[in-house]
Amino acid sequence: MWHHPRMTTRPSSPVRHDRIKRAQALMREQGVGAIVILNHDDYRWFFGFDRAQPRAIIPATGAPALVAFSAEEDELREMVGGGDVMIWGSVGGQINDVVTRLRAIGAEAGIAESGRRLRVAMQQWFDTPAFLVAMFEKVNPGVEVVSSDPIMDPLRAVKEPSELACMVAAQRIAGLGMDRARSLLADGATAHDVATETVYTMMRAGANRTSTPVYVNVGRETCMLHGWVSPRPMRTGDLVVIDLTPMVDGYCANLARTFVLGEPDERQRSLLDAYRTLVEAVRDAMRPGATVAELDALAGAVLRDRGLADYHVNGIGHGIGLRFEETPASTIIPPHRNVPLREGMTVTIGHTILAIPGFGGVRHEDVYRVTPAGGEILVPFPVDPVVTA
Amino acid sequence: MWHHPRMTTRPSSPVRHDRIKRAQALMREQGVGAIVILNHDDYRWFFGFDRAQPRAIIPATGAPALVAFSAEEDELREMVGGGDVMIWGSVGGQINDVVTRLRAIGAEAGIAESGRRLRVAMQQWFDTPAFLVAMFEKVNPGVEVVSSDPIMDPLRAVKEPSELACMVAAQRIAGLGMDRARSLLADGATAHDVATETVYTMMRAGANRTSTPVYVNVGRETCMLHGWVSPRPMRTGDLVVIDLTPMVDGYCANLARTFVLGEPDERQRSLLDAYRTLVEAVRDAMRPGATVAELDALAGAVLRDRGLADYHVNGIGHGIGLRFEETPASTIIPPHRNVPLREGMTVTIGHTILAIPGFGGVRHEDVYRVTPAGGEILVPFPVDPVVTA
Repeated sequence: MWHHPRMTTRPSSPVRHDRIKRAQALMREQGVGAIVILNHDDYRWFFGFDRAQPRAIIPATGAPALVAFSAEEDELREMVGGGDVMIWGSVGGQINDVVTRLRAIGAEAGIAESGRRLRVAMQQWFDTPAFLVAMFEKVNPGVEVVSSDPIMDPLRAVKEPSELACMVAAQRIAGLGMDRARSLLADGATAHDVATETVYTMMRAGANRTSTPVYVNVGRETCMLHGWVSPRPMRTGDLVVIDLTPMVDGYCANLARTFVLGEPDERQRSLLDAYRTLVEAVRDAMRPGATVAELDALAGAVLRDRGLADYHVNGIGHGIGLRFEETPASTIIPPHRNVPLREGMTVTIGHTILAIPGFGGVRHEDVYRVTPAGGEILVPFPVDPVVTA
Repeated sequence: MWHHPRMTTRPSSPVRHDRIKRAQALMREQGVGAIVILNHDDYRWFFGFDRAQPRAIIPATGAPALVAFSAEEDELREMVGGGDVMIWGSVGGQINDVVTRLRAIGAEAGIAESGRRLRVAMQQWFDTPAFLVAMFEKVNPGVEVVSSDPIMDPLRAVKEPSELACMVAAQRIAGLGMDRARSLLADGATAHDVATETVYTMMRAGANRTSTPVYVNVGRETCMLHGWVSPRPMRTGDLVVIDLTPMVDGYCANLARTFVLGEPDERQRSLLDAYRTLVEAVRDAMRPGATVAELDALAGAVLRDRGLADYHVNGIGHGIGLRFEETPASTIIPPHRNVPLREGMTVTIGHTILAIPGFGGVRHEDVYRVTPAGGEILVPFPVDPVVTA
């Protein structure tokens, strides 16, 4: 069942037709017939709202289609205030509707006669599972699936003021969470209890959810490249790394801090001090044109000067926005090491742990905006690691 | 750097060598050279603990390998109490180690001389992103990637008593969360506040996290096939659908209930009554050998008798365990409609909404164990929809 777009669009429609048009221009330039959206971030960026199961098709020319469950149609139609809304009543129906629509797009573009296949772009990231792509390719034999990054990256990398406002709000909430978490650190406290109270504080402050669980790594487990919730209670002398990722209207925050319960020993102090210096060096170099490879080299130089070169790990920062990790995300997609930063991109510094195996690690991570004068922190938050009970 | 397995295994090792051996027997039967694990559920099932980034290789013969960040090696080695632990210091290093290991497995199996490719099984589910599989295939040209379902489904579908204990614990916590959520339903309450307090209650009761966000759908938005957190405050007369998914030690729970604020109207009452009858019919038929297709037909018959056939949606239940949706998961993988249930499988009933478009929908979902006498509910929880403020 296809509905023709209504010609009247309610002024309150959240749909970003301006962004859709910019994407369509790039699609035509790149010979892409349609984008198929299966992820929350692109869905929200184009349509201004989110669904539990985001599904949409944007053709290179003409109206986009939202793919929804039949009973949601009225609500969705009212929400978007015009534009095609495709309807499905089952998984089989949804697939059939998508296949039919893509065939129509291909036919309009004269693909079949040309002997070519219709190029369909999809986000190739953690939210695009291999089995769905395989199923999609099977039912759409006339389609060639390509990554949507060459369309979406140029559009989404530099954040608009309204996007920055959400990111600042989310980052402020992360700060409230970190204040709460820090207040609970004490000999005998458990990571689970700290995580529980911190989630509660952030949600009460308006976070919709978190991108990742709240990570509270304790003692030797601060060596982990990624976080978790340590099982054993924390003890005086322990390093504790806390990583918070609240979201506001789909936009992500990232705030990580390392604490020491009691007076730091010499090694803890040297790691903390090295990390602070490293972050400052990277932040100052975070100008348009710089690459993560260059920033990593700077971080490595700081560690070399301090005799800590053995513990250097690449991937000091990553893009952040509607997706928790977006371009450049060099630890996920190695070629991103050489993607030049652009003014107005939002990028974290402090992604990688500085860890001495078997001992512990430190890091502190914040979100910065790339400017010609270096990284501009979105929301300053103190680096104040020593917790005295 | 490869380490030979130590011959002494600490008695406290969480590694399930018995399960690894059973998987290896199936791998040899099916001509699969290795399983590559990228997901939390299989990782935990085999190794008895979890990591933020679960990565492991289980060859058809010999010791498994955990792929970890170099600084985590000591901690991991102590935890597993023996067995190979592969080490990496960067993404590039990790990929290289995996490639080297798979080549060695292929060489041991005499794959190269035979002219065949090494069959490597991976979970094909939401946690296996297309870009990782593509990258994996590119760097391992001698490998054919196949689904690990034919190995893992027979092993994991029927739950052991220790697994059931975790699932019961998680389901009890869901009940505590639902009690808390219900107590907050009132004219003017917001879905976000209900979700915030419910998450807090469940985490304080011991939930590690939730599989999905807490869903609180209000009014017409109860029509949604999937949940979200409704933006507008709830009002007297509204339907409210709440879906809770706390996890304990990686095991999932699922408890959904529908409430009405105030006295239900006739349509609300008829939907609630139909759903209750539908669940009872499906539960009684949930015996070994039954399929989701058959259970859907039964649910459809109940609705037809009540003049609600137009609103029937297939997919009344799904498997649940270490993964929130596991086999059979017919709304994700259509052929699962015809997978026969086995005694001791854990399956939900109440997955699909019974919704009248533009009006609202109802459902209540619980987890059952398949027995010859029908579905046995894991933790009974009242169906008591009328909330009077």
